[in-house]
Amino acid sequence: MVLPTKFDWEKLQQFCIEIFEKNGLSNKDATTVSESLVQANLRGVDSHGVVRTSIYIKRVEEGLINPEAEIAMEQEKGAVTLLNGQNHFGAVVGTKAMNMAIRKSKKYGAALVGVKGSNHFGTGAYYALKAIEQDTLLIVVSNASQTMPPTGGVRPFLGTNPLAVGVPAGKEQPFVLDMATSVVARGKIIVAAQKNEEIPLGWAIDCNGTETTDAQAALDGSVLPLGGAKGYGISMFIDILSGVLTGAGFGKYVNNMYENWNDPQNVGHFFIAIDINQFMPVDQFKSRMDLYIQEIKAEPKAPNVKEIFIPGEIEKRIEEERKKNGIALPEKLVEEFIQLGEKYGLNFLSTEWTGHAANGSEKETIK
Amino acid sequence: MVLPTKFDWEKLQQFCIEIFEKNGLSNKDATTVSESLVQANLRGVDSHGVVRTSIYIKRVEEGLINPEAEIAMEQEKGAVTLLNGQNHFGAVVGTKAMNMAIRKSKKYGAALVGVKGSNHFGTGAYYALKAIEQDTLLIVVSNASQTMPPTGGVRPFLGTNPLAVGVPAGKEQPFVLDMATSVVARGKIIVAAQKNEEIPLGWAIDCNGTETTDAQAALDGSVLPLGGAKGYGISMFIDILSGVLTGAGFGKYVNNMYENWNDPQNVGHFFIAIDINQFMPVDQFKSRMDLYIQEIKAEPKAPNVKEIFIPGEIEKRIEEERKKNGIALPEKLVEEFIQLGEKYGLNFLSTEWTGHAANGSEKETIK
Ligand SMILES: NC(=O)c1ccc[n+]([C@@H]2O[C@H](COP(=O)([O-])OP(=O)(O)OC[C@H]3O[C@@H](n4cnc5c(N)ncnc54)[C@H](O)[C@@H]3O)[C@@H](O)[C@H]2O)c1
Ligand SMILES: NC(=O)c1ccc[n+]([C@@H]2O[C@H](COP(=O)([O-])OP(=O)(O)OC[C@H]3O[C@@H](n4cnc5c(N)ncnc54)[C@H](O)[C@@H]3O)[C@@H](O)[C@H]2O)c1
Repeated sequence: MVLPTKFDWEKLQQFCIEIFEKNGLSNKDATTVSESLVQANLRGVDSHGVVRTSIYIKRVEEGLINPEAEIAMEQEKGAVTLLNGQNHFGAVVGTKAMNMAIRKSKKYGAALVGVKGSNHFGTGAYYALKAIEQDTLLIVVSNASQTMPPTGGVRPFLGTNPLAVGVPAGKEQPFVLDMATSVVARGKIIVAAQKNEEIPLGWAIDCNGTETTDAQAALDGSVLPLGGAKGYGISMFIDILSGVLTGAGFGKYVNNMYENWNDPQNVGHFFIAIDINQFMPVDQFKSRMDLYIQEIKAEPKAPNVKEIFIPGEIEKRIEEERKKNGIALPEKLVEEFIQLGEKYGLNFLSTEWTGHAANGSEKETIK
Repeated sequence: MVLPTKFDWEKLQQFCIEIFEKNGLSNKDATTVSESLVQANLRGVDSHGVVRTSIYIKRVEEGLINPEAEIAMEQEKGAVTLLNGQNHFGAVVGTKAMNMAIRKSKKYGAALVGVKGSNHFGTGAYYALKAIEQDTLLIVVSNASQTMPPTGGVRPFLGTNPLAVGVPAGKEQPFVLDMATSVVARGKIIVAAQKNEEIPLGWAIDCNGTETTDAQAALDGSVLPLGGAKGYGISMFIDILSGVLTGAGFGKYVNNMYENWNDPQNVGHFFIAIDINQFMPVDQFKSRMDLYIQEIKAEPKAPNVKEIFIPGEIEKRIEEERKKNGIALPEKLVEEFIQLGEKYGLNFLSTEWTGHAANGSEKETIK
């Protein structure tokens, strides 16, 4: 049978919603989780897209994510709130925390929401983009299970703890920084290993703690924090805010969702929402952002550089293309969806998908 | 005449205080500025130490820093405040903003203070350490004049906009992350050029925008943001918070203190103080920090690594050594101090300084 390879994002999202509903999520929560995953695919961040559907569901099946948990407010004072996710889906807990931060920022000028007892929350951009829709500046961080050594270390201790920042602009695209604190995504090393290519020095260490250009040795070792000790410091700081301060796990106490089948992950997140109007009228701020962005984009370009991008801009272009032409999914993932569908009484192949033509990564082309 | 080469930190600080007082600063403000500079030397961050005294004074003499300005509160609502430094010294404005953030964080759980109309504020660690003394978690950022290109650019557009974070611990040393958003300090490239050594690829571009290992070409070009586009994004974000949002300069509107003799710098800063007790009792938090730090420090070490450090720990060791043995200053700087003294009726050489033996950088030895 020839499997479809390109998928209309709305239909894909609808399929995910139904799968999650079959697993005990309310329609609203299933929509949140599915939207976060499909948006990641749309924006070219396939590592955080629908490929995560099956692991999320597996953890629900094993009782390690509670799709009906009551998220609890544990502390509240002025601009600060502490939520306990009670082991609900990360995207559901994160969305609740983000909405609370945005709402309270209108009252206090800014609001901070710490979260414990959560799970993998997808991309940081998901929250940053929602805040931008509400003219709010948002900083969001999360810890994650161990993948990176401290500077001077040999084995994973810190997560690739992501940092995301969303800032609205006026006529220009908003600023959407969304980054792991590793030099590169592990996915890039996997690709190099598959192609038998070397990786640049500085990306990873082997299992003895020595820097390596051998992709396979790097996979057996660990990816490094970005920028040496600086990235180590940033990642640690994110772990402190998200984990040590909130009461969530930190370091080895954040459980790996693929490997630990005894305990919930106990991931922590931290949201800071700033009401721009407290500083200046939001329209004036947006004009300043536009000027800033225009000036950067107009800078002289290095040899072979066609365009200078603002963080989030490349992803926005990919989103436009994929909204039009569909999301390419690898065969293995399509087969996983077919099986998941069968298990939960949904026929993945009964949908009229967009196309059947294979397609490379547009991200690389646009870059 | 044989000049002294090592200087007792308290006497050096006293000399600076007197020089600044002669230039119109109150004793309190002169102490703040001098403390910030001498602390940088003590901690091994000589680039931000007393070497800055003469440029600060020159800008006062030229009417480009106002040592008697009334720092103004422009907006205040709940947890958020906007200060106008009115062109006072950066360290004075920064200290006021930090104190306000800490004080208000006790009321609102957290507090954010944006600052415009300021000047070069020294090291971020100066504020982080003060907050730690008050059991407060502090995040502080500042923009700076143009030194780094955006990713894909050729010439300086962004500052090396520093990020600092202070977090108290219990028995262990506190976490003090304080970093420029460049790969390395420009000073390291200057040293390589002097020694005719190559620099690693990835540190800098030449004036055509091509990555270079030639230190001199790098000095004629620009130092790069740390971690490629990620550092570019972080630096830009700091500029947005400190500059675009507060009404201070941003990008090219932050004036270079060494080159622009017509306008004040209009630097912006941003402080976020978090009252730890809103999340959990501070003692419990400190125990968690201790555990976290102990676990990191106990990690297996890569070949040739003697110790794994926590951000701020290396600087703390240097401080202990320099408090005991004095701060080494280069001859050129000593001569500058002698002249500054003469100009303002102070005899730099009448002080009994600590020693006369030249000394290398302990930072390198400890690392
Ligand atoms: N939930 C978790 O536990 C977790 C952990 C790690 C990462 N993540 C997610 O993984 C995703 C991928 O992270 P990543 O670091 O690999 O992303 P990346 O390296 O592709 O991009 C990082 C950032 O840099 C910007 N950028 C990249 N190239 C640029 C250029 N040339 N000019 C201007 N800006 C540019 C992007 O827009 C983005 O904001 C993120 O969505 C992150 O939230 C999640
Ligand atoms: N005011 C301004 O405009 C401005 C601009 C740029 C920089 N600065 C200041 O310049 C100073 C120097 O910045 P930098 O980036 O060159 O500092 P750096 O690279 O020496 O250190 C950066 C951080 O990494 C930590 N660190 C370094 N090596 C480590 C290791 N092996 N293990 C654990 N942690 C380690 C340090 O403790 C520090 O917190 C800072 O004080 C900064 O505030 C100020």
